[in-house]
Amino acid sequence: MIIEPIGIIHAPFKKKEDCPIQSVYASGAEGRVEVFERYAPALKDIEGFSHIYLIYYFDRAGEVKLVRPPFMDDDPHGIFASRHPCRPTGIGLSIVRLKKKDGNILTVEDIDVLDKTPLLDIKPYMPKFDHVENATKGWTDEKEGRPKPEGRE
Amino acid sequence: MIIEPIGIIHAPFKKKEDCPIQSVYASGAEGRVEVFERYAPALKDIEGFSHIYLIYYFDRAGEVKLVRPPFMDDDPHGIFASRHPCRPTGIGLSIVRLKKKDGNILTVEDIDVLDKTPLLDIKPYMPKFDHVENATKGWTDEKEGRPKPEGRE
Repeated sequence: MIIEPIGIIHAPFKKKEDCPIQSVYASGAEGRVEVFERYAPALKDIEGFSHIYLIYYFDRAGEVKLVRPPFMDDDPHGIFASRHPCRPTGIGLSIVRLKKKDGNILTVEDIDVLDKTPLLDIKPYMPKFDHVENATKGWTDEKEGRPKPEGRE
Repeated sequence: MIIEPIGIIHAPFKKKEDCPIQSVYASGAEGRVEVFERYAPALKDIEGFSHIYLIYYFDRAGEVKLVRPPFMDDDPHGIFASRHPCRPTGIGLSIVRLKKKDGNILTVEDIDVLDKTPLLDIKPYMPKFDHVENATKGWTDEKEGRPKPEGRE
């Protein structure tokens, strides 16, 4: 299937090494989500949500490997059991805080993507659907945020 | 960009009218997520997670409208402020409960998609990243699950 971006994410991170592993580790980094003008009406009422999902394309990801150590661990895990960027379809998912809407531009906080990342979709975070109680943590249990291991894709 | 499915979601819902609005309203409906054989190694360690995201393609969605009443409301909202299937890039997102892994087949609960939906990605639900405290509910505040309004796409 052919999917065309609906916008571009502008973020302070120009290089992979600078990009946080996840939005919770982004320490409030501010980004601008530019939705192409023709899609601006689709943002109606989004300002009522404090958090939104950004679905985007990892356009600068490296080689896809089905099993590899993710950034948070030195042991290898399946790519579908991790959020690592080098995935078969290259689709990324982040939850960010929505600060402001200005026409076709959303200002967001806790952005964790590279500057100029192609945006594929925006969905509101709905506590009723998305807030899972008592979900287990798999291999991430007891793993903490850490700097990205050097020299590792 | 060209995106090829990584698998197929098998679910008990053959018709749109039968399909729950969201996984929380799916009342435990069981589905089988078939990951194509060549991607089976990418499922390594996924069984440690109780919940996973399925990212898929709404292949039978109707006409895209940027503003429309979603199933949960009679007032129109922007498509990016709703989870409605008729979206510019047709990408869907559901959180389901992972019951079992059997080779390249995952058995899941609370499935809310049509049978034979093309699967684009699987990501583990990680409470540390995905469990947002005190997110606001926008227009969904005080809206409850309800049957899909008849005759409405």
